[in-house]
Amino acid sequence: MKKGISNYQIGETFDHFLLIKTASKGVASNGKPFLSLLLKDTTGEIDAKLWESTPEDEGLFTPGELVKVVGEVGQFRNRAQLKIQSIRPVQPTDGVQAADFVEKAPVNKEDLMEKVTEVIFEMKNPNIQRVTRHFVKHYQEDLLTYPAAVRNHHEYVSGLAHHIVSMLNIAQQLKDLYPDINADLLYAGIILHDLGKIKELSNASSPSYTLEGKLIGHIPIMVEEIRSTAKELQIDGEEITILQHMILSHHGKAEWGSPKPPLVREAELLHQIDRIDAQMNMVNRALKKVSPGEFTERIYALDQRAFYKPSFEES
Amino acid sequence: MKKGISNYQIGETFDHFLLIKTASKGVASNGKPFLSLLLKDTTGEIDAKLWESTPEDEGLFTPGELVKVVGEVGQFRNRAQLKIQSIRPVQPTDGVQAADFVEKAPVNKEDLMEKVTEVIFEMKNPNIQRVTRHFVKHYQEDLLTYPAAVRNHHEYVSGLAHHIVSMLNIAQQLKDLYPDINADLLYAGIILHDLGKIKELSNASSPSYTLEGKLIGHIPIMVEEIRSTAKELQIDGEEITILQHMILSHHGKAEWGSPKPPLVREAELLHQIDRIDAQMNMVNRALKKVSPGEFTERIYALDQRAFYKPSFEES
Amino acid sequence: MKKGISNYQIGETFDHFLLIKTASKGVASNGKPFLSLLLKDTTGEIDAKLWESTPEDEGLFTPGELVKVVGEVGQFRNRAQLKIQSIRPVQPTDGVQAADFVEKAPVNKEDLMEKVTEVIFEMKNPNIQRVTRHFVKHYQEDLLTYPAAVRNHHEYVSGLAHHIVSMLNIAQQLKDLYPDINADLLYAGIILHDLGKIKELSNASSPSYTLEGKLIGHIPIMVEEIRSTAKELQIDGEEITILQHMILSHHGKAEWGSPKPPLVREAELLHQIDRIDAQMNMVNRALKKVSPGEFTERIYALDQRAFYKPSFEES
Amino acid sequence: MKKGISNYQIGETFDHFLLIKTASKGVASNGKPFLSLLLKDTTGEIDAKLWESTPEDEGLFTPGELVKVVGEVGQFRNRAQLKIQSIRPVQPTDGVQAADFVEKAPVNKEDLMEKVTEVIFEMKNPNIQRVTRHFVKHYQEDLLTYPAAVRNHHEYVSGLAHHIVSMLNIAQQLKDLYPDINADLLYAGIILHDLGKIKELSNASSPSYTLEGKLIGHIPIMVEEIRSTAKELQIDGEEITILQHMILSHHGKAEWGSPKPPLVREAELLHQIDRIDAQMNMVNRALKKVSPGEFTERIYALDQRAFYKPSFEES
Amino acid sequence: MKKGISNYQIGETFDHFLLIKTASKGVASNGKPFLSLLLKDTTGEIDAKLWESTPEDEGLFTPGELVKVVGEVGQFRNRAQLKIQSIRPVQPTDGVQAADFVEKAPVNKEDLMEKVTEVIFEMKNPNIQRVTRHFVKHYQEDLLTYPAAVRNHHEYVSGLAHHIVSMLNIAQQLKDLYPDINADLLYAGIILHDLGKIKELSNASSPSYTLEGKLIGHIPIMVEEIRSTAKELQIDGEEITILQHMILSHHGKAEWGSPKPPLVREAELLHQIDRIDAQMNMVNRALKKVSPGEFTERIYALDQRAFYKPSFEES
Amino acid sequence: MKKGISNYQIGETFDHFLLIKTASKGVASNGKPFLSLLLKDTTGEIDAKLWESTPEDEGLFTPGELVKVVGEVGQFRNRAQLKIQSIRPVQPTDGVQAADFVEKAPVNKEDLMEKVTEVIFEMKNPNIQRVTRHFVKHYQEDLLTYPAAVRNHHEYVSGLAHHIVSMLNIAQQLKDLYPDINADLLYAGIILHDLGKIKELSNASSPSYTLEGKLIGHIPIMVEEIRSTAKELQIDGEEITILQHMILSHHGKAEWGSPKPPLVREAELLHQIDRIDAQMNMVNRALKKVSPGEFTERIYALDQRAFYKPSFEES
Repeated sequence: MKKGISNYQIGETFDHFLLIKTASKGVASNGKPFLSLLLKDTTGEIDAKLWESTPEDEGLFTPGELVKVVGEVGQFRNRAQLKIQSIRPVQPTDGVQAADFVEKAPVNKEDLMEKVTEVIFEMKNPNIQRVTRHFVKHYQEDLLTYPAAVRNHHEYVSGLAHHIVSMLNIAQQLKDLYPDINADLLYAGIILHDLGKIKELSNASSPSYTLEGKLIGHIPIMVEEIRSTAKELQIDGEEITILQHMILSHHGKAEWGSPKPPLVREAELLHQIDRIDAQMNMVNRALKKVSPGEFTERIYALDQRAFYKPSFEES
Repeated sequence: MKKGISNYQIGETFDHFLLIKTASKGVASNGKPFLSLLLKDTTGEIDAKLWESTPEDEGLFTPGELVKVVGEVGQFRNRAQLKIQSIRPVQPTDGVQAADFVEKAPVNKEDLMEKVTEVIFEMKNPNIQRVTRHFVKHYQEDLLTYPAAVRNHHEYVSGLAHHIVSMLNIAQQLKDLYPDINADLLYAGIILHDLGKIKELSNASSPSYTLEGKLIGHIPIMVEEIRSTAKELQIDGEEITILQHMILSHHGKAEWGSPKPPLVREAELLHQIDRIDAQMNMVNRALKKVSPGEFTERIYALDQRAFYKPSFEES
Repeated sequence: MKKGISNYQIGETFDHFLLIKTASKGVASNGKPFLSLLLKDTTGEIDAKLWESTPEDEGLFTPGELVKVVGEVGQFRNRAQLKIQSIRPVQPTDGVQAADFVEKAPVNKEDLMEKVTEVIFEMKNPNIQRVTRHFVKHYQEDLLTYPAAVRNHHEYVSGLAHHIVSMLNIAQQLKDLYPDINADLLYAGIILHDLGKIKELSNASSPSYTLEGKLIGHIPIMVEEIRSTAKELQIDGEEITILQHMILSHHGKAEWGSPKPPLVREAELLHQIDRIDAQMNMVNRALKKVSPGEFTERIYALDQRAFYKPSFEES
Repeated sequence: MKKGISNYQIGETFDHFLLIKTASKGVASNGKPFLSLLLKDTTGEIDAKLWESTPEDEGLFTPGELVKVVGEVGQFRNRAQLKIQSIRPVQPTDGVQAADFVEKAPVNKEDLMEKVTEVIFEMKNPNIQRVTRHFVKHYQEDLLTYPAAVRNHHEYVSGLAHHIVSMLNIAQQLKDLYPDINADLLYAGIILHDLGKIKELSNASSPSYTLEGKLIGHIPIMVEEIRSTAKELQIDGEEITILQHMILSHHGKAEWGSPKPPLVREAELLHQIDRIDAQMNMVNRALKKVSPGEFTERIYALDQRAFYKPSFEES
Repeated sequence: MKKGISNYQIGETFDHFLLIKTASKGVASNGKPFLSLLLKDTTGEIDAKLWESTPEDEGLFTPGELVKVVGEVGQFRNRAQLKIQSIRPVQPTDGVQAADFVEKAPVNKEDLMEKVTEVIFEMKNPNIQRVTRHFVKHYQEDLLTYPAAVRNHHEYVSGLAHHIVSMLNIAQQLKDLYPDINADLLYAGIILHDLGKIKELSNASSPSYTLEGKLIGHIPIMVEEIRSTAKELQIDGEEITILQHMILSHHGKAEWGSPKPPLVREAELLHQIDRIDAQMNMVNRALKKVSPGEFTERIYALDQRAFYKPSFEES
Repeated sequence: MKKGISNYQIGETFDHFLLIKTASKGVASNGKPFLSLLLKDTTGEIDAKLWESTPEDEGLFTPGELVKVVGEVGQFRNRAQLKIQSIRPVQPTDGVQAADFVEKAPVNKEDLMEKVTEVIFEMKNPNIQRVTRHFVKHYQEDLLTYPAAVRNHHEYVSGLAHHIVSMLNIAQQLKDLYPDINADLLYAGIILHDLGKIKELSNASSPSYTLEGKLIGHIPIMVEEIRSTAKELQIDGEEITILQHMILSHHGKAEWGSPKPPLVREAELLHQIDRIDAQMNMVNRALKKVSPGEFTERIYALDQRAFYKPSFEES
């Protein structure tokens, strides 16, 4: 199998297929037009310039298209950059498809769904169980394909479900260690906490923010959906208020987007588990790219920290 | 007419009726029980101690009860304190009623309602108009009696409507000065922005926070109500998202409880008008209590500032 | 009439007059010298590069000069950039003048002056009136031509007077709504609050900071001028201290340049009105440049917010 | 068995044994001396006043002494206060001992030690294993009796070991979920992270800060001890630097006492696990004291939050 | 000589003269009036209660009066408190005077004046010299008697001059070490930097804030005085702007009251020298009150730090 | 003598020797490789581009090498940039050496050492003296050659010793002015405070951070070394704890890297003297580069301030 774009060294020639993520036209310092492309496969992304581009090029090379590219991998301002020597749209005979160029969660949908179904099945509180089951059924397709975020962590197809399942696993362990925990609340909170992303983001594979996402945000969207779902199911217990509170407070602090801090034990745990899984996702993926004895690149969402991989680790 | 409790000087004897706002039992340094009361009339509040109280006293003197009190006005730790010489519950023959001891907005309900009705009538956008009218009808009684807050500003019966009407007046003037303003949005935002307080607070006359108020808060409550009302009225335009955004952002900043800052012109104006009217309410009432050449007491919600009344002002 | 530079699309050819705002020499990546120009008309500004510039070019194309330019509008790092094909200084026969290329307040000087004169005439406190009138007379020419700031809001010729008049209008309305306001103080504060800019900035049409502006700033400059003017007019009442306080505190907080926060009601109002008018000036101008359903560019002085123009607005 | 001091209601008479935690002399408003005592048993603490105390009283009633007290439980400024009617030192015939009045971790020392020994045994990296084992042996007695803090969380006898074991349990689970984790580092970091408290605090049962604790603090103390222990054991690998870094960074941020933020994956996890276990310890203990439908008292170390116990929880 | 009030231990009887600093009437928990006095001599202050005070007492015992007091030194809420047994106004035959009860700088006025005169004499820049000399002459009496602050540091008679002289000494040494320093600027800045306190505070011996002090503050007051003095002396060089800047910026940061940070080398040094001398004044005086091996009380203006006196220091 | 690189104007041709500080390969917009070099002599640094570089060039032009360069001084994004026309490695016959191209402290090593030796000799406390002397002996060579920092202040060969000696001079003067100061502690603190940089940085002439420097930092490194040195010298007095505290706290605040703030007088002074000398070093060097009437470039470590050189200063 061909190696991915992230594995090329400066100076190597790339000759393979890539997916266009973004494309914009510019004018070079010599006054000639060029296309600035962001190309990707499952291993990563690379900037590319198509110098002296024609209007026809602009029509052909648009976001979402697959292309066959030949070019040399160089560097510009410390970022890898592909100097395109030739580029053409894929043809049916190339036998490649967009789905193969998009990063996906490293687990399959059936396993994800099974885990979610399992914890809902185990719930003892019927109100919490009915609301949670309703949401999972209602959003099942999107829940299984959406990313958990546009960038930073779990920002790939099925990232949302991957994040949920990973958090459920942590929650189950903590329930064993701290038996006072109300598992129904915690599991429901985990499953529901980021479902508002399905309305905040435009779609699963190349997500951007919707108007509702920009002006309201996934947290108030979901607080509202829980109430209207409860009405629809004719459920009116305090469980609904607690679930709303858990969603509302799961970012932990007002300045992080939660108008109320966690005021219920399981809300606080939801916030902590969310942080740990998001961090591990970011740190582990960054560490995978470096060798023992090296620092990772700076991770924006972790206060720009670069993490060190001890030299006594296995590479 | 008898002068109110706030107008008494240290050393004067008070002999009149007061309403018990709070009551709690304590043990004095001599080991004897006493009742610590907070008594009020429309001019203000005063602490009072009933030394060597009996269990019968505890049964009689509870929050919401009216009492006839004789006592000397003293001072303890810089707060006025009434030293009770005699106290008894009111009798029917006293001819006083609780409603006369509660502070009320300095305008009547008809005038308040008329103003609100007028601006709704003038709205041109049918979606905004229908939603706003629905809320006003649905919550009419509470809208006319609730305070705008538990403390700080407009914290009296009908304070919410008083605040709304005052803000509408400012908004109408600004609309004249900046004609680009979308008056429908701004007026609807003003009328709806604090309606969530009706669920956040327990009642109009002696409000405390409800569980929903503590765990969710009036902003998300109202964001949710606008959506469900729109569904009920089968309205689905972008107006609903904008109205939700205006409520969501009207505290201006994440750390003040708005997960999104104002991103629509009228949302920003709503925030500014809300601030101005709240500040004027606090500052004017504080300045009324002092003479020219004096500073007011520190106002908690205005960064603990004490305001100066110039000596060339009329008293 | 020719359309302004801001109205050109990428790819269009511009062939008209522009004013040079700034000019600096650079060395291109091919080692050849070039001139980097910032060109403007009343609709906006555009970067331009004159490649392979000669020493003669450097002498001709300097800030303040008018030029005839032909070039294609392109883009570099998301900013519009004019690729110059030909450029020459204007000739008398071109019949254009610099004054036509500078943005000006959308009202005339007579109207501005009339409003200011009117509110001074209405003042009842003779001390406040005399001080205010003295300043207006003394600085009349500059007051009518200076901008209110170098950037962000009212940053155009006569912006200062435009800002003052707009604030006076708001103040007059608030005086009606809150009759306790001392109108003399508020109007005087509005007229005087930014007059120190006349010493802080070098001139009205292409202002930069003076040494006094950089080391002292317009607030302490004006606090000082009020005192010395009062001495000159042999006025010594508390009004002078209050006026100084209003100027000193009008930025609202120490970290925004006011060593004292507003401690007088009218000082607080001055701060609020200043904010509202500055914000409306920024937001309205940004919204004018976009169509319904779009976001404005990020506005630096409003916490980098981009504002949304609802799609149901008229364009 | 007698009920503990925390379980008494206002007005009840207490007649039992208590341990004196602190004692100080005061002068009452009537000019007479009194003793202000803080008395405790395993259920909590209570303030007490011994009015008109004699010099003999001062000699008898000192911190660490056990006393027999009769008195009425009252309230002063919202805190329970015991009004002493009679008090005397315990006599041998009373058959009580100080150890019975001190709160202890709810697990026994053997179990704590077994867990620590087990994870050390499982370590694969000999350098990490030797250093960790050395510390555990060297400080075994104190490690098993010290609290983890003077207040807030695990602030009881054997609290440190209880905290370590609880964290080890979480770590073992996370290791299963995220197999990339270097378990040796994480376990060693957990065991060592708060050992500096043994020098920071004066003793296990009534700890106060030592001079070294006040001027240096447990983090730098432990960073230093790891280096000197490594020297003693003639170990010089990068493992030592990493272990020092984990201790140094385990408070997470400079303003929380860590001059370096976590820059190694296991350091970040150590910080997160420490937080979770400390929070669960605080929240669980606070929730135990309230009934379903109530809020706990405000928890100082959790940003003064009061936590709600849902009414559908079992009490 | 009698020992001062600060040197008494709890339980000792005081029988000597004290100066009344503040006096206020209260009502005791038994309903009887009392006088709350703050009494002082040069060693410190003590709270005192005169129980069951008469109206005559209130007339006799007012701030500024000297009294002969007998009473026992006790403690209330960790503060020393004098329980008055007898108190009477001083009589001529007592032979004591108020001046002996006020703390004064530990140097005499002639030495202070000599130092100031010396550095002015040495100045080379005639503009700086003339302005500085003018201020010193104009304010000579107040400059020699005012405190440098109401609390925290140099808060005693002649504290301002003491602070100036101490700073001049540091400045002279730094001038030797960093010869580039413009000594004229630095010395003038030191002499002038706090002169505005003379208008900010009411008087030298029992200072409170004036209205101008509260609304404008000593920094803008002095910035203004430098300009008007320069006008009066017909000096108009850049030196005046620099001197104004030095005063304006000497608190170092906007949030500490300086709208401009130091932007001239000598302005930065002025800020640093001011800090050092203020800190040394606070720390040295606090350390004088404790023995080796003890911590001082917390010093409010130094972030509430308590300083340790090493046990190997001489006491 | 040839003028240094910092003294060239835009447009001038440079033809002399320079030292390569950093070198990295890039790809130009025309797709050709180039070398990006940072070249320096004792007067400063300049960016340089070697266009169309060959693999041989990459081998020749590496950090630490001396080169003969001919090129024109231009500008790119407001930074000077050398456009290389020819470049070659130095040859023995050129008679230049790297040591002549590195900035060094403006005093010689003997004078630095003499001062340090003198203050150690004068110490009275034998414990402090022995520890200090031990460190100076142990690290003598590095102490005399290391910089005090990688950037900002004293960032040149022997900068550390220069900084120490300069601080000792200030300390000696302050000791005269405030005789209570414990000179032994203060001098020892100054000599030791930054010695941890010797382990934090890789070497004296082209320092980068070591792993220990990145993960632990010079402050904890030195705190640890003082303890182990004391053990080695069998010294165990409180002096050691105080010295550790002084190092630990010398950055003044937690957010600046000191987990404890200064709690000993001499620790506070150490912090203040460190600041003053660092600031004077930065400000003086920046002011040297500009003429009277100009502002310096912004100084990063001084909150990005640009300092003004008064026009009445000598240039």
